[in-house]
Amino acid sequence: MKLKDLVLMTRSYRRFDEAYRINDGILESLVDLARLSASGANRQPLKYLIYNTPEDCGRVFPSIVWAAYLKDWDGPVPGERPSGYIIVLGDTSITEAFGVDHGIAAQSIMLGATEAGLGGCMIASVRRETLRTELAIPERFEILLILALGKPVEKVIIDEIRDGDVKYWRDSELNHHVPKRPLDELIIKL
Amino acid sequence: MKLKDLVLMTRSYRRFDEAYRINDGILESLVDLARLSASGANRQPLKYLIYNTPEDCGRVFPSIVWAAYLKDWDGPVPGERPSGYIIVLGDTSITEAFGVDHGIAAQSIMLGATEAGLGGCMIASVRRETLRTELAIPERFEILLILALGKPVEKVIIDEIRDGDVKYWRDSELNHHVPKRPLDELIIKL
Repeated sequence: MKLKDLVLMTRSYRRFDEAYRINDGILESLVDLARLSASGANRQPLKYLIYNTPEDCGRVFPSIVWAAYLKDWDGPVPGERPSGYIIVLGDTSITEAFGVDHGIAAQSIMLGATEAGLGGCMIASVRRETLRTELAIPERFEILLILALGKPVEKVIIDEIRDGDVKYWRDSELNHHVPKRPLDELIIKL
Repeated sequence: MKLKDLVLMTRSYRRFDEAYRINDGILESLVDLARLSASGANRQPLKYLIYNTPEDCGRVFPSIVWAAYLKDWDGPVPGERPSGYIIVLGDTSITEAFGVDHGIAAQSIMLGATEAGLGGCMIASVRRETLRTELAIPERFEILLILALGKPVEKVIIDEIRDGDVKYWRDSELNHHVPKRPLDELIIKL
């Protein structure tokens, strides 16, 4: 697939067919894409937790703050929740400066998820102490991102931005609309 | 191309065939990949400067700190310097919290560069005030990353890591070796 098509298909999905399960091999292959991606000063300080059983997924879910702009929505209902998670940690025994390594890694993982017929969402709004306690994550690891994954059941539509309003929204058919700034606004001339 | 192959080919290159020039359209299409990638809370606060003429490239080059682990190397010699740059800026009039947006964007751009037959390096070690003055970048923009691009003329080899030493190095044929941690070290079990 052309990268442009892969990037276009890699939208942020938040509703899934929860009956569809993701095996360990897929999650490991996604982390491998992150492993092979760039890392600041080649330090490679990221570590990963992977979860895919209904029970484990149920332990991660409550720590996620879902879709801040959708005020009337508390996150996906049972049956539409993610069926896998990759939690990205920063190993402070290697460095305390993770730079944008987790952004680079997350993008490789989400593009890989799309190629594997999955979709998901990078989530930085995390109840970190709740998650740390629930999963017994040692203090040595900084909780950087949760990548929620599953078989998407929602349609995400890229719109042109209007009046600079970046808030995503849902239409009456629950399609998720995301306003994107145009290219000529992003490339500036000095 | 399979994403895994694209990721494997997307190494950090620092020596190029400077005679090979990159046109505006390529650089714009790379920024478009970043535009269509995820952004925290969909704020899309990144802006981009693109340069591809020898003269403009000559204005960017002196602000780059090259390859910290290669103590005897001050960066590519004339003839092997990048033939294009994408400078990633954070627009503080939108937000001051850029999260890992520039990591996500940079990975999309570098994967796209590989697909276009190019290569390059994400550079965070930048003489920011030198660059700001040289290019007259307004204070409103934070300088986040320089993405140096060109037609690579060096071979980059992924090695297994030994004794935890992450420093990349060059062999006698100037091949660039990058030690990577193994997957089973990155995926942790609690």
